[in-house]
Amino acid sequence: MEAPAEKPDYLYEQTAQYVRELIQEGTIQKGDRIPSVRKLHQHLGVSISTVLGAYQLLENQGWIQAKPQSGYYTKANPDEVLEIPSRTLPQSTEPQDISLAYQVSRTLQQPEMLQLGAAVPDSSLLPIKALNRIMGKILRDSPHAAHQYLVPPGHLGLRKAIARRVIDAGCRVTPEEVVITNGTSEALFLSLKLLTEAGDTVVIESPVYYSLLEILNRLQLKVIEIPCSAKQGIHLQELEQVFQQHRVKAGVIISNFSNPLGSLMSDIKKETLVQLFDQYQVPLIEDDIYGELSFISSSVREGESQRPKALKAFDPRVIYCSSVSKSLSPGLRVGWCLPGSYLQEFQHLKLALNLGSAFLPQATVAQFLSGGGYDKHLRQLRQAFQSQLERMTLAIRTYFPAGTKVSRPQGGFFLWVELPEYYDAMQLHIEALKYQISIAPGPIFSASGYYRHSLRLNCGLAWSHMVEEGIIKMGQLLQAQR
Amino acid sequence: MEAPAEKPDYLYEQTAQYVRELIQEGTIQKGDRIPSVRKLHQHLGVSISTVLGAYQLLENQGWIQAKPQSGYYTKANPDEVLEIPSRTLPQSTEPQDISLAYQVSRTLQQPEMLQLGAAVPDSSLLPIKALNRIMGKILRDSPHAAHQYLVPPGHLGLRKAIARRVIDAGCRVTPEEVVITNGTSEALFLSLKLLTEAGDTVVIESPVYYSLLEILNRLQLKVIEIPCSAKQGIHLQELEQVFQQHRVKAGVIISNFSNPLGSLMSDIKKETLVQLFDQYQVPLIEDDIYGELSFISSSVREGESQRPKALKAFDPRVIYCSSVSKSLSPGLRVGWCLPGSYLQEFQHLKLALNLGSAFLPQATVAQFLSGGGYDKHLRQLRQAFQSQLERMTLAIRTYFPAGTKVSRPQGGFFLWVELPEYYDAMQLHIEALKYQISIAPGPIFSASGYYRHSLRLNCGLAWSHMVEEGIIKMGQLLQAQR
Repeated sequence: MEAPAEKPDYLYEQTAQYVRELIQEGTIQKGDRIPSVRKLHQHLGVSISTVLGAYQLLENQGWIQAKPQSGYYTKANPDEVLEIPSRTLPQSTEPQDISLAYQVSRTLQQPEMLQLGAAVPDSSLLPIKALNRIMGKILRDSPHAAHQYLVPPGHLGLRKAIARRVIDAGCRVTPEEVVITNGTSEALFLSLKLLTEAGDTVVIESPVYYSLLEILNRLQLKVIEIPCSAKQGIHLQELEQVFQQHRVKAGVIISNFSNPLGSLMSDIKKETLVQLFDQYQVPLIEDDIYGELSFISSSVREGESQRPKALKAFDPRVIYCSSVSKSLSPGLRVGWCLPGSYLQEFQHLKLALNLGSAFLPQATVAQFLSGGGYDKHLRQLRQAFQSQLERMTLAIRTYFPAGTKVSRPQGGFFLWVELPEYYDAMQLHIEALKYQISIAPGPIFSASGYYRHSLRLNCGLAWSHMVEEGIIKMGQLLQAQR
Repeated sequence: MEAPAEKPDYLYEQTAQYVRELIQEGTIQKGDRIPSVRKLHQHLGVSISTVLGAYQLLENQGWIQAKPQSGYYTKANPDEVLEIPSRTLPQSTEPQDISLAYQVSRTLQQPEMLQLGAAVPDSSLLPIKALNRIMGKILRDSPHAAHQYLVPPGHLGLRKAIARRVIDAGCRVTPEEVVITNGTSEALFLSLKLLTEAGDTVVIESPVYYSLLEILNRLQLKVIEIPCSAKQGIHLQELEQVFQQHRVKAGVIISNFSNPLGSLMSDIKKETLVQLFDQYQVPLIEDDIYGELSFISSSVREGESQRPKALKAFDPRVIYCSSVSKSLSPGLRVGWCLPGSYLQEFQHLKLALNLGSAFLPQATVAQFLSGGGYDKHLRQLRQAFQSQLERMTLAIRTYFPAGTKVSRPQGGFFLWVELPEYYDAMQLHIEALKYQISIAPGPIFSASGYYRHSLRLNCGLAWSHMVEEGIIKMGQLLQAQR
């Protein structure tokens, strides 16, 4: 790791070089806390986002690391950090054909398939019995309710429970500000429909989950993919450049355990990001579906996971979307939107779309969330996901080709795997299907078809001999590619 | 009823005049069958749609009447036929503000409200117990299924049941050609989203149910409202003129018991309508939600209701939308689309929107439809609706002002009421709300705000003292308007 010979092009790279020199010359000792973002911002007279860009670069290069609630520290040894993409140029693209992504989704309906593709939690990890007991009770206690129209905003008890839960994410909303949807997907679709018209440009993270690309494709939106790091997410510097050079109508961001990278933004980065959107007057849509699936221990309560803040905590105008599809039940299709100032328009759009969602799933989730068992369930679920991620990581290190890089998420339940460049994930996808193994090949995570040597693996499945066999088989298929 | 003094402007009016003269001069006797549409078409050398336009005009003027499966006959005495609007000029309009329609929908959530506004069947008429028993059994037999993703096209058993049932409507589709949606509304929303872009023009019936206007509004579509008769629906002549003069991107039609007029098109009219759309290459979307709620007795099986044909029976390219919301359960949100050649695109759009619908409602409806009890239920339901419509009609004739006209639908469950012109249905709506009575005022059925002296009354409620009291109160409120 040597200092670059020439003066770098970008201000954030120059800032990074300045800090790197402080470390190299010993002004900052290994393991020391490095100057805070605000301090450096004042000291060098560069913007906050420039400093953050610099720190992200240094983090990606293995010089420093972030410690939650504390700041950045220099590192003794650089580790195997996955930086993806190493550098892509932002560009405006028409979303690609989505039939491949549809194919991956369709494998969900094939029970014999090893589900390492789509992002699904193992149903053995979900509180099925409790949910079904609640459903049975609702049908007995109020037999007619399930068969009546329930127009937007939706079930009051559920909206109350959601308003209570998002307090932990730093959001203050009343139940009247919550609108129930059929999953996060519908919340995102309707939010984007409200904010954009066909042909408009939207900024997204890259790589990004294919369901979002499908929505953008169907709404005929152009996308600009912003490079991301597997640790801290979107590159603010590049985002700002895009804002300066393009007319952007909206952005969709996952700040907590992004999909597929699993990156987590620090609070200060979240704040800066929100300010950036505000500064350029671009409406920000947040997908926080993985926000409650954090492995980070709370410094306050021992053994309790710390639920990271939402972007909306830093600006109530952020349009917040989430659901219980990854934590309770994919099949109930219960999600929600906190549309901020778009509340009334969002409700009208949801009414026009399907007159509202079905009653029973809403009432069921409402009772489960209010019942007190949800936090206990989440603790078990996070532990299971963390352990499954660790076992999958180990299996990949054991059976995949040398040089394979793997993300190290602090929440959620999938891994982003970057194969050495001469391996082809599309070919792996096609061949694995023959062995009843479904994976999500890299190119479906980009509107421009990048990431041909990457893939996302679902670690929502309980670890089993079958899963391990699947990884071994893929290792063999990759070996055959050489 | 005198012959017009001057030669009428339109060919169909001239044709009508020709037939009227045949009746007046005694060539066709009262009660006789008049020349068939095809015969007159050949004889006069005018198009089929011109003849149909003429016959519709004569029917609306009370000269002739249609007898199902038989043809048109002259009438002894003209009856109180409701022709609405008597004549509106087709025009392209931006859909109006929908907040009033939203207000009407919201009253559904107020249990103390007398629900004469929104189109809802009384839950006492629905097979709630049987549906809930099925749901309980599904949860016991396959506890995990309800919690798993079910991607488009949706539940196979349900798609099979639907493919079987639409045979009665004259449609031949395989289960693979059926896509499950959250109600008819979502099916229509997605169909229109596929066929149009913001700013495009769509033809609709006038008056038309407000949920469709909401969809058109939200998709930023322009609409041209085509005049309709309360008996035979849309005026083909005017529709053809619109096709000649405007670039129309799609049409949405209810041929069976349209909402709100309750009109039913004859088979020959359906065929001609479909040909007209074909001739001008305009894609046709059909809403057939009331198709199974026909009161017309079958000539084949005694006591059995005859289910009228769908428009799709005459052209497999018609995009067919329906649901069980009016016949089994509004709250389950189970609907479907038979998208014809748009099958794949429709599935992709549904996937992008919300990844598919919830499993349990689909599986429940599938079992109910396959179980054999559905036809028996439909028989009872039709009888109940017919009797409720008759009682409501009687109550209106008794308590509403003299000169009030009422539609006489042969299926479905609402009435379109036309008050004498100096009465204001908007004012009635506002005042009735104070007495906890919800109605659907006329202007929400038009993108142009027509029908200020009309209203739609929901007759889905089981007849009761309360309903009658509601009508009496409205009669009083109307009297106070004088």
